[in-house]
Amino acid sequence: MIWNTNLRWRLPVVCLLLEVVMIVLFGVFVRYDMDADPHWVEEKAIKNLTTDLENEFYYRYPSFQDVHVMIFVGFGFLMTFLKRYGYSSLGFNFLLAAFGIQWALLMQGWLHSFDGRYILVNVEKEASHCGGSSCAARGPGAQAHTLVPIHQVKDAGGSMTIHAFGAYFGLTVAWILYRPNLNQSEERKSSVYHSDLFAMIGTLFLWMYWPSFNSAISNHGDAQHRAVINTYCSLAACVLTSVALSSALHRKGKLDMVHIQNASLAGGVGLGTVAELMILPFGSLLIGFICGIVSTLGFVYLTPFLESRLRIQDTCGVHNLHGLPGIIGGAAGAVIASIANIDLYGEEGLAYTFGVERSKTSWNPNMQGRLQAAGLFVSLAMALVGGIIVGLILRLPFWGQPPDENCFDDSVYWEGPSYLPAFPLMTR
Amino acid sequence: MIWNTNLRWRLPVVCLLLEVVMIVLFGVFVRYDMDADPHWVEEKAIKNLTTDLENEFYYRYPSFQDVHVMIFVGFGFLMTFLKRYGYSSLGFNFLLAAFGIQWALLMQGWLHSFDGRYILVNVEKEASHCGGSSCAARGPGAQAHTLVPIHQVKDAGGSMTIHAFGAYFGLTVAWILYRPNLNQSEERKSSVYHSDLFAMIGTLFLWMYWPSFNSAISNHGDAQHRAVINTYCSLAACVLTSVALSSALHRKGKLDMVHIQNASLAGGVGLGTVAELMILPFGSLLIGFICGIVSTLGFVYLTPFLESRLRIQDTCGVHNLHGLPGIIGGAAGAVIASIANIDLYGEEGLAYTFGVERSKTSWNPNMQGRLQAAGLFVSLAMALVGGIIVGLILRLPFWGQPPDENCFDDSVYWEGPSYLPAFPLMTR
Amino acid sequence: MIWNTNLRWRLPVVCLLLEVVMIVLFGVFVRYDMDADPHWVEEKAIKNLTTDLENEFYYRYPSFQDVHVMIFVGFGFLMTFLKRYGYSSLGFNFLLAAFGIQWALLMQGWLHSFDGRYILVNVEKEASHCGGSSCAARGPGAQAHTLVPIHQVKDAGGSMTIHAFGAYFGLTVAWILYRPNLNQSEERKSSVYHSDLFAMIGTLFLWMYWPSFNSAISNHGDAQHRAVINTYCSLAACVLTSVALSSALHRKGKLDMVHIQNASLAGGVGLGTVAELMILPFGSLLIGFICGIVSTLGFVYLTPFLESRLRIQDTCGVHNLHGLPGIIGGAAGAVIASIANIDLYGEEGLAYTFGVERSKTSWNPNMQGRLQAAGLFVSLAMALVGGIIVGLILRLPFWGQPPDENCFDDSVYWEGPSYLPAFPLMTR
Repeated sequence: MIWNTNLRWRLPVVCLLLEVVMIVLFGVFVRYDMDADPHWVEEKAIKNLTTDLENEFYYRYPSFQDVHVMIFVGFGFLMTFLKRYGYSSLGFNFLLAAFGIQWALLMQGWLHSFDGRYILVNVEKEASHCGGSSCAARGPGAQAHTLVPIHQVKDAGGSMTIHAFGAYFGLTVAWILYRPNLNQSEERKSSVYHSDLFAMIGTLFLWMYWPSFNSAISNHGDAQHRAVINTYCSLAACVLTSVALSSALHRKGKLDMVHIQNASLAGGVGLGTVAELMILPFGSLLIGFICGIVSTLGFVYLTPFLESRLRIQDTCGVHNLHGLPGIIGGAAGAVIASIANIDLYGEEGLAYTFGVERSKTSWNPNMQGRLQAAGLFVSLAMALVGGIIVGLILRLPFWGQPPDENCFDDSVYWEGPSYLPAFPLMTR
Repeated sequence: MIWNTNLRWRLPVVCLLLEVVMIVLFGVFVRYDMDADPHWVEEKAIKNLTTDLENEFYYRYPSFQDVHVMIFVGFGFLMTFLKRYGYSSLGFNFLLAAFGIQWALLMQGWLHSFDGRYILVNVEKEASHCGGSSCAARGPGAQAHTLVPIHQVKDAGGSMTIHAFGAYFGLTVAWILYRPNLNQSEERKSSVYHSDLFAMIGTLFLWMYWPSFNSAISNHGDAQHRAVINTYCSLAACVLTSVALSSALHRKGKLDMVHIQNASLAGGVGLGTVAELMILPFGSLLIGFICGIVSTLGFVYLTPFLESRLRIQDTCGVHNLHGLPGIIGGAAGAVIASIANIDLYGEEGLAYTFGVERSKTSWNPNMQGRLQAAGLFVSLAMALVGGIIVGLILRLPFWGQPPDENCFDDSVYWEGPSYLPAFPLMTR
Repeated sequence: MIWNTNLRWRLPVVCLLLEVVMIVLFGVFVRYDMDADPHWVEEKAIKNLTTDLENEFYYRYPSFQDVHVMIFVGFGFLMTFLKRYGYSSLGFNFLLAAFGIQWALLMQGWLHSFDGRYILVNVEKEASHCGGSSCAARGPGAQAHTLVPIHQVKDAGGSMTIHAFGAYFGLTVAWILYRPNLNQSEERKSSVYHSDLFAMIGTLFLWMYWPSFNSAISNHGDAQHRAVINTYCSLAACVLTSVALSSALHRKGKLDMVHIQNASLAGGVGLGTVAELMILPFGSLLIGFICGIVSTLGFVYLTPFLESRLRIQDTCGVHNLHGLPGIIGGAAGAVIASIANIDLYGEEGLAYTFGVERSKTSWNPNMQGRLQAAGLFVSLAMALVGGIIVGLILRLPFWGQPPDENCFDDSVYWEGPSYLPAFPLMTR
């Protein structure tokens, strides 16, 4: 096959065309929500609000920003660990995320906040759009996000619908796109000292703001607050077990930067489904404990196995950070939901948390637990089917893919990066 | 001319003196606003407030912080792209911004919140001071910020009064300070691999927090909310067109890191004037679309032209990121203001958005549009005049300027940076 | 003495064991505060709250996040200035802070929010825990935080209880652990160009978010607002004097990156005690002015003196950034408290600021001033005693300390960092 990596016409045409389509669709469908419309002044008078504080902007904007830092700085820098792939990691993540937030605003708008004529936007909704779009932004294996069509499945932080779905979707694509000669790029698949430090910028911002991500679309009030506390506890525990396993699995007890950069985040993924449920702080620690261990074990044993036996090349360790912890999170959701009870939540709290209407007496925790388990399986099934379809499409030869010997190399798509500081050593 | 770059007496004396002046002026003029004064407890009782939430701190501090991240991290790192100018970019931006926030607090305090005796400070006001001071912090060509003395011109995000003014002011200064032999520093005017990654820290934090900047001094409530949504949309569109043009203008279709670092921000500049107006989300996308294209074209065609024909050296591409998009933004403001109407804004919304008093029946959109256009021309005129004056002052020989062959080089002003990692290659 | 740096069993066992202990203690003691409990819905009805805004989450979460950025990104990157210690700085800071937030939640929970059965957590409290735990994370000399057992000492930002205590505790430990042959690691105690740029990420995020840190546990309302303004002013002034002294103390007037990275933060430390008091903006500038000067002088004259005469090795300049400014801050607190009066604070404001009950007529500013001074001395005394004890414990030979010739070197504890970019120079 002849590889043609010249993007000169393909990339510009695709970008400009997509943006024109966006402008047209936004023109037809997207309007400001009342909170962002000049009629808000009248609305305030009607609703008898005495203060602008009730405008969603004032209490939702900080979380909105945190989620954006995760997507743009977090994921952008996390992938700069490759020694010659920093431009691509930052640049393509930036491009995909910038398109993804527009696309997700439309898709989720049509599905969730379409009033028959318009999609009404505000920062609350855009925070979740941004979250939803994050999937588009991970590494070379394309990933996507869809909504499991079972309502009432709790999955605020997306253990199942974002992480498990995205990971297995991406791995399926990678399986179809397997490149047997990728070892010609082997030398560039590792990191150098400063690329690992750049990657830590990504890790730390993801770690710090993950509580905002898991709580972004929770119910307001106690649920959002609880989602933050739970995610925070899980992430803290996960750091300790990642470090522990990283050291224990090295013959000299040395730590591996890859584990610190990735496995320390698994606790956030694992808490995605149960974040707003009554798992209690110790339950969150426990899930973080397990996720840190499983994720690090995955890096050491499973990734090499996937590559050598299953022909799946997982450069970023998506399976260890998103796949396995996503499944743990989904399973935890099923268990925790099935033991929900009035003692723990209070009568009103139970109804509010699970969105149960008073009249709907048929709801019970057991049923919710089964719904959650079903949600996990549907996610995985859709990931496999979707991954196969997209994988086959991506095998078509006009995408400008780099040849095997030029993978993980910015110079394929970027003008002249000069890798070495081109000046003489100065002494003090 | 003999160059003397020794700052030993000049820099310390200037810094210490300025800070002493600040302490004295602050002692005479600056007091806490009621929200930050211990008498707030009594104020709360008088105003019948039941909660501390009404204290501006709680709903304005997050935006205040975002703007500071833009100024200190965003602009600081954006200019680290030069291979030997990282210390200077970060250090001098830090110094200028730290002085700028004190200076702007006084200047804007006297102009806007002076009660006859005191300037009353709170986080709301300081957020705008910080924005106002940002101009002081861009690159080697000094820039400044002033207030166009036409009231009622809308320019919340400063397309005209910050960006267009600052850019053309700086370019005028650069024109007067033209150094024909600067090509002796040519080799240091480019970037290396890791310096481009550092610059992306700046780009991404500027991009993410630009909505906070454009909304910082908007009216509370819907206007602030709308300013965020509009800026966000414009920035997203701008990334796609920057990428498209960058690739289309390269003979092999490769992307140029300079465009991604700068042109992707032009959408924020272009939205500065209209951010809080009823431009609708698709209008924001459209402005971002145009700004991304114009800015990238500027980098490819206009910057070389400015240098070779007009003798203006624009190392950071200020003209492409601030000048052109600032003019687009100012022009868009005139158009959008002139089509404002009651259908779009509602009667009360129109009055609130444009600060029109009920009794003042003479206001009409057409007049507002002309005011906006006048504001743009006044900004540009003041930039040229101010730039000429400051440029002539800066030609005086006692500023410690580096000679032509040492420009863009930290070692002129910084103790012993050792550029090369001074350790042997380690293998795994 | 034979050094054994193999952590294979020690580190994993310690981490896993500590985390198991945490899970058990959290299971027994830690529950959600009412704001994060599903019973909040009922609580709202009882308290007659009409909005979720009253949930602490909405008005405290942004500060909570800022403090975490300081601890994880700020301190993590601040110490990456060493050329071969970046992995350790980021990784061990990450580990210690992740454990520290759990540990501090328990300790401070038992001391302050224990209701007899449970510790009730919410984001407000965790923000202070995080602050409290920061001490555990500074550099090679272990530091710790304890509570000065004198109630009613104002020290919201911890000049005395965090900074002065932590610094002198750490220096005492370093004195006991003195390594006469550490000069074998001398070559690695300096920075390289890009390591200094990484360190500036830490400095800038610490600088920007320090106002959040100093205000995190202040009284709500005006006190928190005032703490932010004061810290902000002090930090701004401190940058100017740090730059001034750095240049003035160099024979050619050149700036030293170490001073910019550290002394520019001293203003935040020095404001820790008085942040919420009526020091007025000019008083804050004055303290920042002094701290910038003292801290820079410390780096130039005191650190070499400590090492050569007192045998205290202070690689990170802890004494200059935390020790001296902490003492200045504590002393300022005593002065400012002793001149408190009703004119300045108002009657209610005075009572609210110092937590004085109406009935308690014995309180007077003079007494408060003496209490503050006593707090400082108790902090210092406990630091010395605690430092000696911990230092002796750390001399025990089973901690996996590196030998003198391998200090400040990641390769002791980290798998294969390859320091040099291992690719050829590319030209455009």
